[in-house]
Amino acid sequence: MEKDEILKKCAECLTATRKATPLCPSITNSVTINFVANAQLAAGGSAAMVYLPDEGEFLAGGCGAFYINFGTLLPVYEETLPRTMAALHKNNAAWVIDPVGLGIGSMRTKLVSCAKQYKPSIIRGNASEIIGVAKLWGLLSEEESNKSSGAKGVDSTDEVLDAKNAAIALANYTGGAVAVSGKADLVTDGKTTVLCHGGSSFLPLITGAGCSLGGVCAVYAACGGAFVGALTATLVYNAAASKAEKYSKGPGTFQPNFLDEIYNLTTTDLETAPIELI
Amino acid sequence: MEKDEILKKCAECLTATRKATPLCPSITNSVTINFVANAQLAAGGSAAMVYLPDEGEFLAGGCGAFYINFGTLLPVYEETLPRTMAALHKNNAAWVIDPVGLGIGSMRTKLVSCAKQYKPSIIRGNASEIIGVAKLWGLLSEEESNKSSGAKGVDSTDEVLDAKNAAIALANYTGGAVAVSGKADLVTDGKTTVLCHGGSSFLPLITGAGCSLGGVCAVYAACGGAFVGALTATLVYNAAASKAEKYSKGPGTFQPNFLDEIYNLTTTDLETAPIELI
Amino acid sequence: MEKDEILKKCAECLTATRKATPLCPSITNSVTINFVANAQLAAGGSAAMVYLPDEGEFLAGGCGAFYINFGTLLPVYEETLPRTMAALHKNNAAWVIDPVGLGIGSMRTKLVSCAKQYKPSIIRGNASEIIGVAKLWGLLSEEESNKSSGAKGVDSTDEVLDAKNAAIALANYTGGAVAVSGKADLVTDGKTTVLCHGGSSFLPLITGAGCSLGGVCAVYAACGGAFVGALTATLVYNAAASKAEKYSKGPGTFQPNFLDEIYNLTTTDLETAPIELI
Repeated sequence: MEKDEILKKCAECLTATRKATPLCPSITNSVTINFVANAQLAAGGSAAMVYLPDEGEFLAGGCGAFYINFGTLLPVYEETLPRTMAALHKNNAAWVIDPVGLGIGSMRTKLVSCAKQYKPSIIRGNASEIIGVAKLWGLLSEEESNKSSGAKGVDSTDEVLDAKNAAIALANYTGGAVAVSGKADLVTDGKTTVLCHGGSSFLPLITGAGCSLGGVCAVYAACGGAFVGALTATLVYNAAASKAEKYSKGPGTFQPNFLDEIYNLTTTDLETAPIELI
Repeated sequence: MEKDEILKKCAECLTATRKATPLCPSITNSVTINFVANAQLAAGGSAAMVYLPDEGEFLAGGCGAFYINFGTLLPVYEETLPRTMAALHKNNAAWVIDPVGLGIGSMRTKLVSCAKQYKPSIIRGNASEIIGVAKLWGLLSEEESNKSSGAKGVDSTDEVLDAKNAAIALANYTGGAVAVSGKADLVTDGKTTVLCHGGSSFLPLITGAGCSLGGVCAVYAACGGAFVGALTATLVYNAAASKAEKYSKGPGTFQPNFLDEIYNLTTTDLETAPIELI
Repeated sequence: MEKDEILKKCAECLTATRKATPLCPSITNSVTINFVANAQLAAGGSAAMVYLPDEGEFLAGGCGAFYINFGTLLPVYEETLPRTMAALHKNNAAWVIDPVGLGIGSMRTKLVSCAKQYKPSIIRGNASEIIGVAKLWGLLSEEESNKSSGAKGVDSTDEVLDAKNAAIALANYTGGAVAVSGKADLVTDGKTTVLCHGGSSFLPLITGAGCSLGGVCAVYAACGGAFVGALTATLVYNAAASKAEKYSKGPGTFQPNFLDEIYNLTTTDLETAPIELI
């Protein structure tokens, strides 16, 4: 695909989503759960969050797309996540995983390993997390594996381009898309790889910028599919953040302004987004 | 009661609540728990949220009113909610239920069924939820039951006036009040039924508009009783939302502005609220 | 230490923290968890929240400082908190406890009792909570113990200066610092006791003002140690709140403005902070 064609598809995805308001349930961390829901609403979707196994399975049956974030695991997730992921796979539903904090504790590793067989449509994370998932799933050569410096808590210590090979390997394995967040953001379906500029230096200063992007990936994937969905979400985030930054005096006011800009974004904003094919 | 008399009682309830700052504990969902607490504080109350059975029972003993929201159930709720509801009933305490997401999973149905015997003072929900509770509690004729089109995740697919009979049936059963949220909002004690206008199209675009209204119903019920409490909360929400909408450029800034307006509302705003008796 | 020397150390702590961005994990309540994380980021730290025992232990191993808040206990905390506190003690790590809601339920009392042996670097709470911990740990005479009027839910019913003896007793026991929040705030290491003025009447009207201060105590303790860390956090809060109050029209807009002011605070703001040694 050419650059203009890609951007046109993203603009169409935005329009279609706002018309359809797809229901995109989440199992997500308690730190940023409110921000995820509000970002999904501002982006044009409908939100519903659950914790229990049968509730995850139930919503996996009738959703536009599903969002699973590994941020703050609870004991019940040991049952909820495998059952929900299995149901999503069985229903051929679009779904997104966000492997937040990979490396902290044993359940996280176990559940991200478990996700491999169910092939999530979109994997979204920072560079360290994406490299970590590709390693865990055995998709990287030993040489590639040794390049990553790991994560610091939930923050990345790697650069986005360092995760390019891992992202492509993951996308080729799942047949879906991978979105890597950083100073510039990378989105790939394994064949086409896009680098997205814009955004704001305030984004890493509000908790949940990444989590809510994952939730919004689900919203746009419901109408645009994995690659266009992940890319539309990324472009919406970068454009809205750039606009909000201009009149925000700190990270506190940046957050509500950012939600306003997501809500008010136009298709023209997407058609002129600063991307490059790499 | 006449319209002016009703509005005067609501204005008196607002004044009395701000003076008393009643403690209104909640067991509520993790998505909007922060917004519920902040709305309760802005409305003039004091907040405290818990998860464990003995903590629910303890707070049921000395509260102004209690708020129970079924949004994001956790395994421990299977014990916490029945024990807390039993304690509230035993203590003759005012309490509010918000049957969010009724129909998702089995525990939700079980717990809302369990609530029947303890007769909550206020039931607050969207039209689909209110019809759902009335059905579950066996208070609707088969013909009435078949009218509802159900819910889409946590959002209503029914209109407020379609839930009028269900609301009246519930209020007559509990001896309390029922508040149905929608484009216009309906509040009834089974005898007097009020339709409340105002509000804002931004309200459905912020997560927890309904949940936080439930928490604020508890705050005003602590000083005004079930019917006046539910109505005061609804009028406060509609008036504050109408004001905040005028200078908010999207749902992100609407939320903090809305809280400001709840905090700054005057008794005159309530005495001139656009209601009609139906 | 003299007043000017103390303030200079706080200003240096602010500068060092912003340079180091220390990782300060939390186990904290679900009501204000988002606000805690955003305040930690605005203050210059890095945040990560967990619930599971092995995750708490893991993060206790490599953190700048750790924050434990007893606000909304879950069943798993019975195992998570003792194991995490033991790991922090063993690692000689800086950590903060916030005994929110002491007196509600049995697990809270049990866990705060358990914390005694691990000697938290900073104890932060309102006057009723600080007196409550000192009583529970057997550090007050019977006469002192009888002075407290207890708590109303999660809010204090005692004045800050009434908690002075309890705070000093606790600091002398732990060898760390104690911060008591109220109209004026008291910070002590058992030898030097400082009363801090400023702040805003909006602070008690936003949920989590105290919790997020606890999280920010951890951030500054990572670079400044217990006493300077607790004092820097308190001064930052009072200065930022005073500034934000000036142009906020209610508690809703006060919160984002407050975060902006934390982020934008200068060392001069700290060097001229209104404190007195008592």
